[in-house]
Amino acid sequence: MNSESNIKVLLAARPKGYPRNEDFLVIESEIPKIKEGELLVKIDWLSLDPYMRGRMNDVKSYAPSVEVGDVMVGGAVGTIIESRTSLFSKGEIVEGSFGWQSYALSNGVGLRKINPDLGPIQSSIGVLGMPGLTAYFGLLDVCQPIAGDTVVVSAASGAVGQIAGQIAKIMGCRVIGTAGTNEKVQFIVDELGFDAGINYKTENVGTSLNSACPDGIDIYFDNVGGFVTDEVIKRINTGARIAICGQVSQYNLEEPELGPRNLFHLTKSQAKMEGFLVFAYEARYDEALHRLSKWINQDKLKYKEDIVEGIRNAPQTFIGMLNGENLGKTLIKVS
Amino acid sequence: MNSESNIKVLLAARPKGYPRNEDFLVIESEIPKIKEGELLVKIDWLSLDPYMRGRMNDVKSYAPSVEVGDVMVGGAVGTIIESRTSLFSKGEIVEGSFGWQSYALSNGVGLRKINPDLGPIQSSIGVLGMPGLTAYFGLLDVCQPIAGDTVVVSAASGAVGQIAGQIAKIMGCRVIGTAGTNEKVQFIVDELGFDAGINYKTENVGTSLNSACPDGIDIYFDNVGGFVTDEVIKRINTGARIAICGQVSQYNLEEPELGPRNLFHLTKSQAKMEGFLVFAYEARYDEALHRLSKWINQDKLKYKEDIVEGIRNAPQTFIGMLNGENLGKTLIKVS
Repeated sequence: MNSESNIKVLLAARPKGYPRNEDFLVIESEIPKIKEGELLVKIDWLSLDPYMRGRMNDVKSYAPSVEVGDVMVGGAVGTIIESRTSLFSKGEIVEGSFGWQSYALSNGVGLRKINPDLGPIQSSIGVLGMPGLTAYFGLLDVCQPIAGDTVVVSAASGAVGQIAGQIAKIMGCRVIGTAGTNEKVQFIVDELGFDAGINYKTENVGTSLNSACPDGIDIYFDNVGGFVTDEVIKRINTGARIAICGQVSQYNLEEPELGPRNLFHLTKSQAKMEGFLVFAYEARYDEALHRLSKWINQDKLKYKEDIVEGIRNAPQTFIGMLNGENLGKTLIKVS
Repeated sequence: MNSESNIKVLLAARPKGYPRNEDFLVIESEIPKIKEGELLVKIDWLSLDPYMRGRMNDVKSYAPSVEVGDVMVGGAVGTIIESRTSLFSKGEIVEGSFGWQSYALSNGVGLRKINPDLGPIQSSIGVLGMPGLTAYFGLLDVCQPIAGDTVVVSAASGAVGQIAGQIAKIMGCRVIGTAGTNEKVQFIVDELGFDAGINYKTENVGTSLNSACPDGIDIYFDNVGGFVTDEVIKRINTGARIAICGQVSQYNLEEPELGPRNLFHLTKSQAKMEGFLVFAYEARYDEALHRLSKWINQDKLKYKEDIVEGIRNAPQTFIGMLNGENLGKTLIKVS
């Protein structure tokens, strides 16, 4: 074992319910040998996101499952340490789906070059990457906010929620976030400027929504599902827009959870509910990244990262994130 | 009591669960006296529709509740027997929200003149009225069908469902309907030309959907909700459109029914679900009526009515309709 090995995190078993450490296997192997047309990346930062839980299941979804024995999937950013393709050079920073490992080979397809002079390179897998783009298109395109609208964001301190809520504020909306600790609620209100926050674990969500949204709810950006979403749906206004970005409350259930069949609220409110994936908006990523960067530079958009060092800690950190132990965007500092 | 009295059906009590005969009160009163600016209509046909169940509850919705002691609301068509307004003449046929009674006064607001030469006047409260318009805008505007799409319609033999399904056929879609008796299933397939029908009371809906929709489901026009909708949602394709027109399976429940929290299907399929009310499309009723009439004349659109004679039979007929005892559009022939 030396520092020159490739540390990989494999899917060891398909989890039942919440993943456990035993569902992952950390191994060391040789740094892969580069071939003509390839490049070798030393990973600097790995993104950990709730969607990865879905990839651990053997069910049909929008992307293939990870096979047992394979490296866990994930977005990462790193430095090219060797290149045998004319499109990329040694020393360049690239972002891509490199997985949970410390080195990765690539033929360059799907990689994005990152300019390190524009900010911390890990923002390419955060506010200026998949989570930021998801928030941007979900809030602006799916929810179509108008100044003065009341917007509720669930998992509001998370990687996507914090950006979605702040974009709604930039658009002139009244923004209420739900989160699972008082610290998170305080963060979204005091540091991000949300108008109110609700701790869904300690408060009566219905009562708190009544107080925080006296004029009802025009937009709901949903990352969690479950009973929080049930309470929001009861309170939507005519013409409400609901973006189903994620349903993290449901990802670790062994049996489907039951809830009220409440779709008639959509009828009587003439409301729309739409599930979306960020990939559908790929042709407009440049537009979104330009605006997000501008808002960051104008100090209108803040971004909280929750950083853990060491790729070996990825499984435990991922499990903790699914249990709500993070505050902000979860990142592994790989090297 | 004589034939010149006004027979009215009042809401006697707010139903718990399915309405019973005792929740209605049939009374005879004098034919109302007309004043300047008013017209008096002798009702010929009364429409009975599932939405009326919602009006019997004391809850906030898109339209006011009927108060206990008031005449039940409902669309009807009748003949003007006296007019003291220059806008309407004696003998004209008018459609409006006259309620469950045999005579009605009106100031003319919201009335629509019906040309009896164009077809049976009761079509103005059916295929060429609210149910037909609901099907037209729900299917074409909310669901945006493309030829070749697989379309599922629930309550497919009902007033709205039969039209929605036939419009989908006209648009070149493959259309599957669900209904609650073999007779209804046979009707939509043999007489209306649906590609397949599923008896949701006797078949395993999931298995039957698998057989009838081997390529998944692109469009769902939902009138019922509940477990039929759960099974459809599991099988939607990428980009699916779901119109929530009604949720009749839920209207008579004393406690909200529980079902799987299944909104993540919307995310992974990037699907839209939209509740709608026909009134939002009022500016385009002429467009819709023109097309619906044309399709009827071309024999592309058929329409089944379930006619019961006598306003006194309205309560029992309404209760029967909520229990699925009708086949087609439920009408009361008042006079």
